[in-house]
Amino acid sequence: MTEALNPIEWKNDALVLLDQTKLPNDIVYEEFTTVESVWDAIVTMKVRGAPAIGVAAAYGVYLAVRNAETDLVEVVQKSAAYLATSRPTAVNLFWALDRMTAVKAPDATYKEALLAEAKAIHKEDEEINRNIGENLLTLLADGMGILTHCNAGALATSKYGTATAPMYLAKEKGWDFKVYADETRPRLQGSTLTALELSRAGIDVTVITDNMAAMVMSQGKVQAVIVGCDRVAANGDTANKIGTLGVSILAKHYNIPFYVAAPTPTIDLNTPTGTQIPIEERHKSEVIEGFGKLTAPADVNVYNPAFDVTPHEHITAIVTEKGIVRAPFSENLEKLFR
Amino acid sequence: MTEALNPIEWKNDALVLLDQTKLPNDIVYEEFTTVESVWDAIVTMKVRGAPAIGVAAAYGVYLAVRNAETDLVEVVQKSAAYLATSRPTAVNLFWALDRMTAVKAPDATYKEALLAEAKAIHKEDEEINRNIGENLLTLLADGMGILTHCNAGALATSKYGTATAPMYLAKEKGWDFKVYADETRPRLQGSTLTALELSRAGIDVTVITDNMAAMVMSQGKVQAVIVGCDRVAANGDTANKIGTLGVSILAKHYNIPFYVAAPTPTIDLNTPTGTQIPIEERHKSEVIEGFGKLTAPADVNVYNPAFDVTPHEHITAIVTEKGIVRAPFSENLEKLFR
Repeated sequence: MTEALNPIEWKNDALVLLDQTKLPNDIVYEEFTTVESVWDAIVTMKVRGAPAIGVAAAYGVYLAVRNAETDLVEVVQKSAAYLATSRPTAVNLFWALDRMTAVKAPDATYKEALLAEAKAIHKEDEEINRNIGENLLTLLADGMGILTHCNAGALATSKYGTATAPMYLAKEKGWDFKVYADETRPRLQGSTLTALELSRAGIDVTVITDNMAAMVMSQGKVQAVIVGCDRVAANGDTANKIGTLGVSILAKHYNIPFYVAAPTPTIDLNTPTGTQIPIEERHKSEVIEGFGKLTAPADVNVYNPAFDVTPHEHITAIVTEKGIVRAPFSENLEKLFR
Repeated sequence: MTEALNPIEWKNDALVLLDQTKLPNDIVYEEFTTVESVWDAIVTMKVRGAPAIGVAAAYGVYLAVRNAETDLVEVVQKSAAYLATSRPTAVNLFWALDRMTAVKAPDATYKEALLAEAKAIHKEDEEINRNIGENLLTLLADGMGILTHCNAGALATSKYGTATAPMYLAKEKGWDFKVYADETRPRLQGSTLTALELSRAGIDVTVITDNMAAMVMSQGKVQAVIVGCDRVAANGDTANKIGTLGVSILAKHYNIPFYVAAPTPTIDLNTPTGTQIPIEERHKSEVIEGFGKLTAPADVNVYNPAFDVTPHEHITAIVTEKGIVRAPFSENLEKLFR
């Protein structure tokens, strides 16, 4: 067991990020003290995962203004606009930048207030994840085998992750449990990220290829499945990384509970059902050139949807920072927002 | 469309093999005229697949004796013993060598009889596969989408393959159909072999990662699943490449027929059920170093079973060269051998 990874930290007046482009082989922390370098870290995916990007950008705004002497509000507005160009589709990025530009304080304490807001955004993300973890933990027990898919982990957030949060908390409690991490083709987030962060934290994790999940379940090794989500529709249908649907069907077949870890901002009551969630289709090279050499004839047809939708009937519970939601989901998800 | 691949051929008094170590990128045919070179081709996996290995070895015995002038029977015995050391676990290899050493003929026609026997072994393999294909074809229809896993294809046999046989026959008939090929982690036989051989034959094939099968089925794109098998137990439980079990559960969930293509020699009435079939566990490097670089932390736990067992309840029919077998499998499989 080595030290747990810390994807994002404010330390010695600098933003410290774990360089995720070097994973899983090299663990390199880099210090960022300018807004330009933070912008670059987001663009080059040294930091990734919507919550982590939002937190990094918030600190970036503070770094932009820290050494300025005049026109502080203008500097903040400009740096926020600049940072917004780094990953234009990341919702958390805009939300974090909006919070930073909304900070009001007298000139004398403005910089201080900006740093405090960045730290608050950081802290809140940690708390959401910790609460999701605590809620999920009530559904688990010592000795269990838990299967997860993709990386809804600490590496995508400030700390704990979402689907992985109960694993970190179970470890804190000294539980004896096993995690099975689907490698998650085509981009292998399960083996490169989830297996990495859990093993670094001293959690017993085993990598399997996606197509081994059925066998592992058939052997009685899995008592719960926990996955993250990209969007939850009003009826509970859940979009998540490609392969989640298949895992949900296997879990149903073997009567294994299937839990979705969902921060409330990912629950979208304006999307009635999963069929309205658009599914991004990505380039074939991810599938057949994912490892630097061709693994199929170059001219072959490839279908490469990045996400799939798990129907709410396959979901045992959707677990948020505000509580555990069970069927009927339409009714009970709506209650969360009252 | 380019020319279909021909994995094994007897041409101009030489054995011509498609060098499978260079697939999917380079299509190279190599001529073999000595027993030593055939032994080497088997060891280095230029030829692979139990039936294809058996055929290549049979020709190898003939090549050993072709230029001999005395002690012909001794040369045959020695070369068979030598070839048997090439892949000691391949059942078809021993079976083919036994047939070659059993050939009896007067000295004057002995060489001729040996070549005829090798050609007969070759021809019989083709015929078994063609018959499996014809039987499977009666279960399919023009316009269908067919999903297959791994490579139970022509590249593992003399021609047609087993699970792929009806696809080649449907193409001959001019049917309009689509094949989805699971890439089949960890060794990617679906993308490197199945997608290759089908696309070269002008068949409309689409590569998907294993974890996309559920989504493709949910979209109504698949009307039949056809897989090969490594061993069928007396009750119909079927061992095949890892991931087959998961596909069978998905097919059951979506009410899609699930067919196993099984030459009768793979049906083992001495194995009562799937639980008695030993499952080979392979090295972790296949999973986390399969592409020349690490895709997970080097010291992570990996579970890598090479096969899984699909319970007979998930199987719509087991299709052999002698006919289509349906439940109750224990009774109906046994009838095949009476």
